[in-house]
Amino acid sequence: MMAPGFTGSPLDRADRVRNDVEAYGALIADWRARILALDGLDPRMSAEGGLHWHSIAELEGSEELILLGLSDGKPHFVALVEAEGEMFRSPVLWRALSMLPAEDAAIYGTARSLIDWHNAHRFCGKCGSTTDMFRAGWGRKCRNCGKEHFPRTDPVVIMLAEYEDKALVGRQSRFPPGNYSALAGFLEPGESIEEAVRREIYEEAGVACGAVRYVISQPWPFGGSQLMIACVAEAFGDDITLDTTEIEDAMWVTKDEARDALAGADNRRFNAPPPFAIAHSLLQHWVTD
Amino acid sequence: MMAPGFTGSPLDRADRVRNDVEAYGALIADWRARILALDGLDPRMSAEGGLHWHSIAELEGSEELILLGLSDGKPHFVALVEAEGEMFRSPVLWRALSMLPAEDAAIYGTARSLIDWHNAHRFCGKCGSTTDMFRAGWGRKCRNCGKEHFPRTDPVVIMLAEYEDKALVGRQSRFPPGNYSALAGFLEPGESIEEAVRREIYEEAGVACGAVRYVISQPWPFGGSQLMIACVAEAFGDDITLDTTEIEDAMWVTKDEARDALAGADNRRFNAPPPFAIAHSLLQHWVTD
Repeated sequence: MMAPGFTGSPLDRADRVRNDVEAYGALIADWRARILALDGLDPRMSAEGGLHWHSIAELEGSEELILLGLSDGKPHFVALVEAEGEMFRSPVLWRALSMLPAEDAAIYGTARSLIDWHNAHRFCGKCGSTTDMFRAGWGRKCRNCGKEHFPRTDPVVIMLAEYEDKALVGRQSRFPPGNYSALAGFLEPGESIEEAVRREIYEEAGVACGAVRYVISQPWPFGGSQLMIACVAEAFGDDITLDTTEIEDAMWVTKDEARDALAGADNRRFNAPPPFAIAHSLLQHWVTD
Repeated sequence: MMAPGFTGSPLDRADRVRNDVEAYGALIADWRARILALDGLDPRMSAEGGLHWHSIAELEGSEELILLGLSDGKPHFVALVEAEGEMFRSPVLWRALSMLPAEDAAIYGTARSLIDWHNAHRFCGKCGSTTDMFRAGWGRKCRNCGKEHFPRTDPVVIMLAEYEDKALVGRQSRFPPGNYSALAGFLEPGESIEEAVRREIYEEAGVACGAVRYVISQPWPFGGSQLMIACVAEAFGDDITLDTTEIEDAMWVTKDEARDALAGADNRRFNAPPPFAIAHSLLQHWVTD
């Protein structure tokens, strides 16, 4: 199976350096340091179609730097920008993602998740006071109560129900016409992955399921940092009862239909999600299973 | 495999009701409503050794109620208490957890996760203003900027490295003497489950791993709401280089040794984690695999 999108970063996250003020200071002063180039929140592309990096000399000096990691001994940073994640699915971004080498997409995804998290946590949830970045950008600390805050990642289950060699796919009204994907939803406190998978399929499509098989996972850096957990669930039947507040349509597709969709065949029944989305990997896994 | 601890809640989470003010109002006014009885944050036990529930008549009337879910048409709530999660691993709690039926432990875990989350998010991380509970207790909304906040669950990877039929277990200095468990750590933004598993084993024990197999998952309601994701990773070798800031010791154990530990045998090499911890389920899976 092809590695899922946003995985395979070549950077060593160097957790050991984050709490070591001296070692971190040396990295910030390293003239070989590379700073990720962004346009707002979108990646700036190099002439070769990869990420573009600045040298540390190009900084103004007032930037707050987040340590993305080390590669060949060189520290890699991104500067915190104050920006809303409005550009979620901007055409520029979507085009960049289809061009970027996998390793670069993974680095960009990490940077983007961290920037969004910092901007949403400039104040302490416990006491309302201002927080400051610490741990090389991998945390924020409250000036008043001292509470330490760490980057948030929300687990999301994304899954195919399976019944007699057919899989259940659905579409939200905001999808482009003809596009279908795996059903998905946030995992809630107090439930396991398997319980969340069964609950979401039942809520959205009224399909009850039993056994759940984990397939693969992917970090997803848009609309907050998410961990997409892809599974296949065995359905007890194929009757669908839609929750139209969640999805606009759902249908059972055969492996041939899914193969045609993934291949973009002319006579395809539906359009599959793009290759960097885990739903693509999940469908790919299912048709070859 | 035995169902992992804190799973198997019999309550229907009734997501559809959370946004429906009218339906929610009817539930709050329902004389059959049951309110989870707590002592601080600890569960109060019934005479039969299960959770104790109050009737709605026993409330003062000023409580903020979180809808845990429905069972036999009866709404089940917990009242938000202002309390710090200090009692993490209080002897009372640990004893209760070893007595509670699985279904009751799952309900308590959900309630505990939500209460801790509300108390840590009384202010908006984006603007610092006061937030108010909404969505039947499954969210908070900022009075000033209107940002909606939803319960947080942190994914944690917990895993055994495996090499030549031995598994790697470790202990933190805060563990009782002789106790060993699976290694574990928080998944970070920008990595998949598989990447987090490999990174954590390498950081803590210096053991490089390849393929990662997902085994099982569990919600864990202490120290914030966590999703424990249990895996087995194939190690490339058995040399250990400890990071002593993370763990005090690590060792390779055979399946016989793990079996003895799980059974509490007299001559056991180490003490296994308690049955309600996913590390217990993971070891159990590994010895029978």
